[in-house]
Amino acid sequence: MPSIFTRIIQGEIPCHKVAEDDRYLAFLDISPLTEGHTLVIPKKEVDYVFDLDDATLSGLILFAKKIAPAIQKACPCVRLGVSVIGLEVPHAHVHLIPMNSMRDVNFANPKLSLSQEQLAVIAARIRSYLD
Amino acid sequence: MPSIFTRIIQGEIPCHKVAEDDRYLAFLDISPLTEGHTLVIPKKEVDYVFDLDDATLSGLILFAKKIAPAIQKACPCVRLGVSVIGLEVPHAHVHLIPMNSMRDVNFANPKLSLSQEQLAVIAARIRSYLD
Repeated sequence: MPSIFTRIIQGEIPCHKVAEDDRYLAFLDISPLTEGHTLVIPKKEVDYVFDLDDATLSGLILFAKKIAPAIQKACPCVRLGVSVIGLEVPHAHVHLIPMNSMRDVNFANPKLSLSQEQLAVIAARIRSYLD
Repeated sequence: MPSIFTRIIQGEIPCHKVAEDDRYLAFLDISPLTEGHTLVIPKKEVDYVFDLDDATLSGLILFAKKIAPAIQKACPCVRLGVSVIGLEVPHAHVHLIPMNSMRDVNFANPKLSLSQEQLAVIAARIRSYLD
């Protein structure tokens, strides 16, 4: 069965898209730790990040780097935290988390409750800095 | 003033080395979240991970990938968590954290208290899987 992320890639499940190319997709986490919390995934479905082939893995981090400044402009913060945990969804994904302190990247924190409209506005704001 | 990590690279401050090449160094975190918690750094001193040039950034994640299986064999776990927070030391560093649940990668957790001898044994065990 395809992962929920593959179903997002295929357009079966909607997402608040931030950026996409032929190999990668970035979209907002719907249970964000902070505003602008973004997931970056390879379109190739591989569970564990270190099982990705070298080209896909290095492309993944460079894709994250490319969109990071736009996230930071759209959601002002000290910097982005980067995390790969991956025990929830078996499809490698990088969390990019706007943070102002170490506390902001604690996955035990309660998630923000943002409406679909609020998420859409944030995604559009990030995309506007990518154009 | 050079970062504490640059001073480790230069051998001024000792570390429990896991792996090294001409561009990267991996060594045990002395305040680990779990046994085998490793830091991977570029020898080039750059504060923010996304300010690294593309070649150094992609090389950094591939260097982490190369040593990950050895850490996992030395410190059995479900997988390694990957985190870049970077507000503590102004020299980009990737945390590789052996984890069995999401809780293991919570930086708010109390750190393990391991002696220098225990850390040396862990580092040697990891290195033994790299040879």
